[in-house]
Amino acid sequence: RSGEMAKLTQLIDNEVFRAYATYATIVLLKMMLMSLVTAYFRITRKAFANPEDTASFGKGESAKKYLRADADVERVRRGHLNDLENIVPFLGIGLLYALSGPELYTALLHFRIFTGARIAHTFAYLIPLPQPSRGLSWAVGYAVTISMAYKVLKTALYL
Amino acid sequence: RSGEMAKLTQLIDNEVFRAYATYATIVLLKMMLMSLVTAYFRITRKAFANPEDTASFGKGESAKKYLRADADVERVRRGHLNDLENIVPFLGIGLLYALSGPELYTALLHFRIFTGARIAHTFAYLIPLPQPSRGLSWAVGYAVTISMAYKVLKTALYL
Amino acid sequence: RSGEMAKLTQLIDNEVFRAYATYATIVLLKMMLMSLVTAYFRITRKAFANPEDTASFGKGESAKKYLRADADVERVRRGHLNDLENIVPFLGIGLLYALSGPELYTALLHFRIFTGARIAHTFAYLIPLPQPSRGLSWAVGYAVTISMAYKVLKTALYL
Repeated sequence: RSGEMAKLTQLIDNEVFRAYATYATIVLLKMMLMSLVTAYFRITRKAFANPEDTASFGKGESAKKYLRADADVERVRRGHLNDLENIVPFLGIGLLYALSGPELYTALLHFRIFTGARIAHTFAYLIPLPQPSRGLSWAVGYAVTISMAYKVLKTALYL
Repeated sequence: RSGEMAKLTQLIDNEVFRAYATYATIVLLKMMLMSLVTAYFRITRKAFANPEDTASFGKGESAKKYLRADADVERVRRGHLNDLENIVPFLGIGLLYALSGPELYTALLHFRIFTGARIAHTFAYLIPLPQPSRGLSWAVGYAVTISMAYKVLKTALYL
Repeated sequence: RSGEMAKLTQLIDNEVFRAYATYATIVLLKMMLMSLVTAYFRITRKAFANPEDTASFGKGESAKKYLRADADVERVRRGHLNDLENIVPFLGIGLLYALSGPELYTALLHFRIFTGARIAHTFAYLIPLPQPSRGLSWAVGYAVTISMAYKVLKTALYL
């Protein structure tokens, strides 16, 4: 069994795989942060989606008025959903890309640009910055994922 | 080729990886169940999102009234989206964690608590239970994922 | 290090894993396409979610009228979310399935049917085709994922 463990450890010892593990974790932690930002805005703006969440504000009509959509809350939620739509492809395609034997330098370039682009996208969405800031940061992350997908299909294609 | 297959089988023979495979599959099946619950409420509440889904109720105005948002349907959909937001990080970080060589006992503890917390979260959301049931079950799953992310970054960090 | 790299390459050289890599990438690229379709409909229907996206249409009330929900945009967004809900389980369970040592023929059958079903689901949603086209294509992808989950649990179960 320690032999198997050694084999697994070899995977995590590979530099490209370690880089993937690092940036995938960072980008997922960033996405998880959106939940906390949503909770922060729901509480400060008093805008909730579930009746049981407003129970501490009293009963009946006095609590019901906090069941509402707030512009700031909805903005964070759109950012969170955009993260899901873009980080899920990065996770899947990035893992396969890391296993497809890219050069360490090239792989780091892909992972760093993607991570930077998604962090920029979050700032552009939440501040918000004027367009095309958000559009561009989205497009950069999208292009990096397409580039990794091309390498995966070139290396592994088996239809 | 049978040599390669043997090597792959070694991965799935590793106990930590088997535990990850088991709990990741359970928690994904639980998430998939939300689609069936949504369909159940859409049909019993007659509340649909697409005109083509109401065609069997007749044409024109008589069918159009079923194109509506229903409180129960929206509740399940919020639970489903919350699953996506939390189970995607668990899948990605959990896989890297399983490959980072944790103790079997510690790994099982992480996987079991996360899975239990997400099942509790679903019950808290759908029944619904009074707060802070849902909030606490969400926070437990969140904390377990952060703990695994810490281990991954400590083991694999390569920026 | 070249020894480790060789080991990683063995994973991507395995035919079942290559098939997984190919179909997972295809289905993720298909999902990513939904972002472009959403952008296309937002621009042609002039229906945006963020004030900063309508700034090029002028200021004040003249731009505000483009902050609206459009039926076509919402349809693509529902299709995109349905992709997330179904492709995330495929990615996770499919990866574990590919590592559980299935027959190449059986694995290809699973991956091909899932990919075909999700492409059919997208056409059924966007055209839209009359029901039960969309429902059936959804159910086929769902059933394939359940079948892979069964194989994973049968091979790897470790509670």
